[in-house]
Amino acid sequence: MKLNIALLAGDGIGPEVIDQAVKVCDAIATKYEHEIAWKPALTGAAAIDAVGEPYPDDTHEVCASADAVLFGAIGHPRFDNDPSAKVRPEQGLLKMRQKLGLFANVRPTFTFPSLIDKSPLKRDRIEGTDLIILRELTGGVYFGKRGREDDGNTAYDTMTYTRAEIQRLAKKGFEMAMARGKKLCCVDKANVLESSRLWRETVQAMEKDYPEVEVSYEFVDAVAMRLVQWPKAYDVIITENLFGDILTDEASVISGSMGLMPSASVGSEVSLYEPIHGSYPQAAGKDIANPLATVLSAAMMFEDLGLQQEADDIRRVVNKSLSEGVVTEDLSEGGKSYKTSEVGDWLASNI
Amino acid sequence: MKLNIALLAGDGIGPEVIDQAVKVCDAIATKYEHEIAWKPALTGAAAIDAVGEPYPDDTHEVCASADAVLFGAIGHPRFDNDPSAKVRPEQGLLKMRQKLGLFANVRPTFTFPSLIDKSPLKRDRIEGTDLIILRELTGGVYFGKRGREDDGNTAYDTMTYTRAEIQRLAKKGFEMAMARGKKLCCVDKANVLESSRLWRETVQAMEKDYPEVEVSYEFVDAVAMRLVQWPKAYDVIITENLFGDILTDEASVISGSMGLMPSASVGSEVSLYEPIHGSYPQAAGKDIANPLATVLSAAMMFEDLGLQQEADDIRRVVNKSLSEGVVTEDLSEGGKSYKTSEVGDWLASNI
Ligand SMILES: CC(C)[C@H](C(=O)O)[C@@H](O)C(=O)O
Ligand SMILES: CC(C)[C@H](C(=O)O)[C@@H](O)C(=O)O
Repeated sequence: MKLNIALLAGDGIGPEVIDQAVKVCDAIATKYEHEIAWKPALTGAAAIDAVGEPYPDDTHEVCASADAVLFGAIGHPRFDNDPSAKVRPEQGLLKMRQKLGLFANVRPTFTFPSLIDKSPLKRDRIEGTDLIILRELTGGVYFGKRGREDDGNTAYDTMTYTRAEIQRLAKKGFEMAMARGKKLCCVDKANVLESSRLWRETVQAMEKDYPEVEVSYEFVDAVAMRLVQWPKAYDVIITENLFGDILTDEASVISGSMGLMPSASVGSEVSLYEPIHGSYPQAAGKDIANPLATVLSAAMMFEDLGLQQEADDIRRVVNKSLSEGVVTEDLSEGGKSYKTSEVGDWLASNI
Repeated sequence: MKLNIALLAGDGIGPEVIDQAVKVCDAIATKYEHEIAWKPALTGAAAIDAVGEPYPDDTHEVCASADAVLFGAIGHPRFDNDPSAKVRPEQGLLKMRQKLGLFANVRPTFTFPSLIDKSPLKRDRIEGTDLIILRELTGGVYFGKRGREDDGNTAYDTMTYTRAEIQRLAKKGFEMAMARGKKLCCVDKANVLESSRLWRETVQAMEKDYPEVEVSYEFVDAVAMRLVQWPKAYDVIITENLFGDILTDEASVISGSMGLMPSASVGSEVSLYEPIHGSYPQAAGKDIANPLATVLSAAMMFEDLGLQQEADDIRRVVNKSLSEGVVTEDLSEGGKSYKTSEVGDWLASNI
């Protein structure tokens, strides 16, 4: 198979972890006789520095015409505490999601047998957790009208949803639930928000099309609690953009290591694969960042491209690196640790 | 001292837990020679059933003229999955917060030595946690314009903040930090939301007035993660209404039991004290609900009324009931358990 993959390294540790994923993908390509054409492109603070824009049109062209996008991370602290910054790396991320139509962020949450005791949560609470959070990614308060009034003394943001946006996301949620544990939980704040009431009534109307799926509706505050109390209660969670942002990061605690959690942002034309950990600037350039989340994101990519065996193979070597202790310092528990690049080399050579 | 206390039992287990708090407060009054005039008033689903309105004007009069309000819980499942319900119990809560000007919700999070192993979090992660979340309670998306457009197919909510609202809340946060660990964390989503950028710039401008306070700014998604990973990192957290709703419920997991966590909703004229656990309809009428969170809320009330010794006395008997196992079934771990009313009687007789 010939594959055209857009490669967006981004900021912070992005370039380093992306390099390792490329090594692993290239090893897969050799083994299974695929041909991968990597198309690197600029994004984030790196793109602001180079061309003044966090998601340049050139980069969009590269992504839109690719079979998939592999993404590192975006964000730089120099923008965070400057409320007046005019261009922010994050804007690039949001523009990319919108222009590529990446409407669903898929975040699986699971535990690794060899790492389960690293979680701040007790083993009996999390062992066997297998849930997916499906976060709406191109609507809500991220994309509504915002601004200032009253000489800058009043600020507002608008959370908006259309029925069609909700249906599109919910449909994917129902389908995923059908292929898994047949349980769907719709998370909202319908006791307060009108947009949440539209979510709830839209999902309720779809229930009849999926009679086998057991659907529940829970408030976001309650889920923020239950997710860490008893994550095994959940199978597929669907939710709007901002709630999903918060709950997916919270859920990453369950696995015990953010450095391992992959994600996919799915569109109707092209999808994007990225680690959930972000740009982690403190570690940038030190060759110490954990590349496994990016490598596992590449596995999700192969799976979605219909290359299941390739995906399984990547997961196999990742598990092997964990059980044999070929890991970066965040996972080494004071034992021997490996550099980012060494872990990448080891994985590639074990494919 | 003569005290006029508005008594809002509300829905679900509200009336049962409020009864126990009254017993304890009356015992305190006898011991310290105070005179408490209880002023019961209707609220929530109970008020809707009686007078068609979840926060009737009569109730507001009672609260506005009281020295403090002791509150049970609000909410009934019959409204939850009915997106078309015109009147909701929760509207009463929001109207009450707004009309009484309860701008700051104070939620202490701490652990009880005898209960620490009930937490889903590991002991070493939570032991010694002592943080306060200060949630803005009368602004944001809870009170912005909301509605439908496009034949009901588009729904929107507006998140709005003024500089003055933020200053009022932040001032309280800085003052609390000064009286405690001198650390303040402002939680927002300033990389996306304009209202968050106003939060951040407003708090930044106040830093110079509290040079001793170490201030940090963190994104809500990161805090949702860190709060359960390492809660001891926090002292005072300030945040807007919706983020506070989510984070305070999440933080309740740390203590291991929602049934123990009190809160205060502070206004400039009168303040309200309530357990954080909600109406818990499944347990209503069974005399099994844990009354301790409500009793500890009454302790916060005495403290705020300047009656520190009375507050300490209540906390002492609560700790005694925990260490002697005079607890409801949620805390009894299969051992002997007591009824809600029995726990209340025991506490009162030990004052
Ligand atoms: C960087 C930020 C804008 C982004 C978001 O809030 O969506 C990030 O937190 C994420 O979850 O991908
Ligand atoms: C019942 C609901 C409207 C309320 C809120 O969201 O504020 C509750 O969750 C709370 O935290 O007091």
